[in-house]
Amino acid sequence: MTLSIQKSTKLDFQPLHQCIPVTFRYDVRFTTGLFEIDNPLLAEVMAADGKPGSKRAIAIVDSGLLRYHRDLLDKIKAYSERYQDAIALVAQPLIVTGGEAVKNESKLVNPIHCLVNRVGLCRHSYILAIGGGAVLDMVGLAAATAHRGIRLIRIPTTVLGQNDSGIGVKNGINAFGKKNFLGTFAPPYAVLNDFNFLRSLDDRDWISGVAEAIKVALLKDPDFFEFIATHAKAIALRDMEAMQQVIYRCAQLHLDHISGGGDPFEMGSSRPLDFGHWAAHRLEHLSNYRLRHGEAVAIGIALDSTYSYLAGWLRKEEWQHILDTIGAIGFALHVPELTFGSLFQGLSEFREHLGGELSITLLQSIGKSIEVGEVDISLYEQAISLLSAWRSLAVS
Amino acid sequence: MTLSIQKSTKLDFQPLHQCIPVTFRYDVRFTTGLFEIDNPLLAEVMAADGKPGSKRAIAIVDSGLLRYHRDLLDKIKAYSERYQDAIALVAQPLIVTGGEAVKNESKLVNPIHCLVNRVGLCRHSYILAIGGGAVLDMVGLAAATAHRGIRLIRIPTTVLGQNDSGIGVKNGINAFGKKNFLGTFAPPYAVLNDFNFLRSLDDRDWISGVAEAIKVALLKDPDFFEFIATHAKAIALRDMEAMQQVIYRCAQLHLDHISGGGDPFEMGSSRPLDFGHWAAHRLEHLSNYRLRHGEAVAIGIALDSTYSYLAGWLRKEEWQHILDTIGAIGFALHVPELTFGSLFQGLSEFREHLGGELSITLLQSIGKSIEVGEVDISLYEQAISLLSAWRSLAVS
Repeated sequence: MTLSIQKSTKLDFQPLHQCIPVTFRYDVRFTTGLFEIDNPLLAEVMAADGKPGSKRAIAIVDSGLLRYHRDLLDKIKAYSERYQDAIALVAQPLIVTGGEAVKNESKLVNPIHCLVNRVGLCRHSYILAIGGGAVLDMVGLAAATAHRGIRLIRIPTTVLGQNDSGIGVKNGINAFGKKNFLGTFAPPYAVLNDFNFLRSLDDRDWISGVAEAIKVALLKDPDFFEFIATHAKAIALRDMEAMQQVIYRCAQLHLDHISGGGDPFEMGSSRPLDFGHWAAHRLEHLSNYRLRHGEAVAIGIALDSTYSYLAGWLRKEEWQHILDTIGAIGFALHVPELTFGSLFQGLSEFREHLGGELSITLLQSIGKSIEVGEVDISLYEQAISLLSAWRSLAVS
Repeated sequence: MTLSIQKSTKLDFQPLHQCIPVTFRYDVRFTTGLFEIDNPLLAEVMAADGKPGSKRAIAIVDSGLLRYHRDLLDKIKAYSERYQDAIALVAQPLIVTGGEAVKNESKLVNPIHCLVNRVGLCRHSYILAIGGGAVLDMVGLAAATAHRGIRLIRIPTTVLGQNDSGIGVKNGINAFGKKNFLGTFAPPYAVLNDFNFLRSLDDRDWISGVAEAIKVALLKDPDFFEFIATHAKAIALRDMEAMQQVIYRCAQLHLDHISGGGDPFEMGSSRPLDFGHWAAHRLEHLSNYRLRHGEAVAIGIALDSTYSYLAGWLRKEEWQHILDTIGAIGFALHVPELTFGSLFQGLSEFREHLGGELSITLLQSIGKSIEVGEVDISLYEQAISLLSAWRSLAVS
């Protein structure tokens, strides 16, 4: 575009239409024993940025890991010494307390910024974030806002982190009592999923992360749902191979949705992957976070599947198969908070979150979803009664 | 992609390659008297988002404006009442002190987040940022990090804001004594350039903003440089029509560079638009910000043009024409800080900013640039001597 300068004295400045195409690329890699001395993956990923020499990096580590992986800091140190041609760890790892609490304290972002400044990281340096979803979310915000974005390598250590929250494009911390009030969309430089970290998860966290896999399978992949249904007992009994396959396929489906869904940075109002989430977010809040995210999502999925059946969308056999599978994995299908009148405030909060218009995802069949703009509260009340009776029904 | 679940017991999880194409679009519009009651532009821009009804918005106003535009707040109020079908101003405008100081105080981002929370803005609400480049940078960071990005309408009120900093994709505040240490890449929802605000600029700010126009003309558009050279005296004498054309073409060239330059979010190391900027940033610092950004950039352009001549790239006549034009607009070509030995620390700071490798943009001719990976300090010292003598040379 080389418009000539206007010569006329009557000036009429037409709008300039800006259009910026940007392509974000990153790999999600799978390994076992990322910091074992004979595992070159991390060094290879850092060496592959096209620049010669050792890359400056800092590591932020979830303190929860150190209880089970007592030698993790020693291993990180030994690893960076072994691969010093690729990695220059320029500071001791920064230990932060994991869990949702790490996101409730905006002051935790600041120490990371201080460290970035103190060791003089530039935009082409690396931050390694090692931990659960909450730590990755918090470190992600710090990395995205220092120098307008330092390269972030996410090393998620939970099922939920490896198959959903840790592989996507969001970060955030809570503020003003609101979940993820502060955050940005910022794709990572790479994601390295180390299955070994999953061994130290407690049973609740092991199971909890499967909820998002059930969700995305129900929305997009009936074969995957059948895999989960078939392996439900094995997963519940901590079969690592079954879990690895669940994580891999779930991650793949999530990545495909982000890249191919047409709205990776959620500029529009549709949120098809939030199936079951209006109730889940509300249940987390109503239970004072006694319920973990995945546990609440499992109930939310059960509720919206039951509503889909009662509304005439979903066949009875499929509905029952869904609830049986969720139960077989080990999830509760009903909690007292489901009967709180204020549960349905979750619908208006969800509408507000979407930007003013309600859009609820329901199931037409396993693997096929539909979005509706309004729902029938009395039908939801029936659905809750059915869930409440489910265990006795299942036994009968 | 619908890979089947692996059936083999030997699990081999191939890397998942994520590729996310995102297209950011926004318009830069030009007007005079944006908040005049008979100017529908702002209301039209907010109505054009495809959603019915009045859009919730807050306004952040640069206090510097109110000295000259005493009725601005009344006008904004009257405007939102007149166009209430499109705009719902849900709070009194928040007044913030303008100038670079606004970026040195991270506590100013927080009141905006508090306001967003208090009035319950969602991601599809609007923040109107009205002011100079520093206010736009600070408000931009606040808007980009609340709810992972509230729609930002920038209303730049300075030449520099309207032709460069206010139309691009960056925001930021200073921290740890470093310029723009904290910030993100976040395209605005729209930019509305109101020429009327330029009337109240003092002469230094009026002139200062022309430096980036000279820069981009030298890099990309010889005809535009000739326009500036021909109208240099008129611009210096505050000819509004000449200035409007300078702003329009400069904005167009900057927008084209961002969209077509291949690296809008600066993930690589090349920064071709930073011609003259290594010295400019350093001179701003060495002068304790006595020099305004544009004044420092003008000297940086003069210095790197002179170096380009001495290094044998640029013809003598073109070099002289460049320096004559910069001088005719009213810029000084030399300041005492140029002779400080620590000036050249600016080169290493610039290299660090780029991510480890130096890349300096020089001129081959007016409109044609070249990047070099190293420079000759002794040649720069000669260039500084030439600039120091320029006024006497020009007179002789």
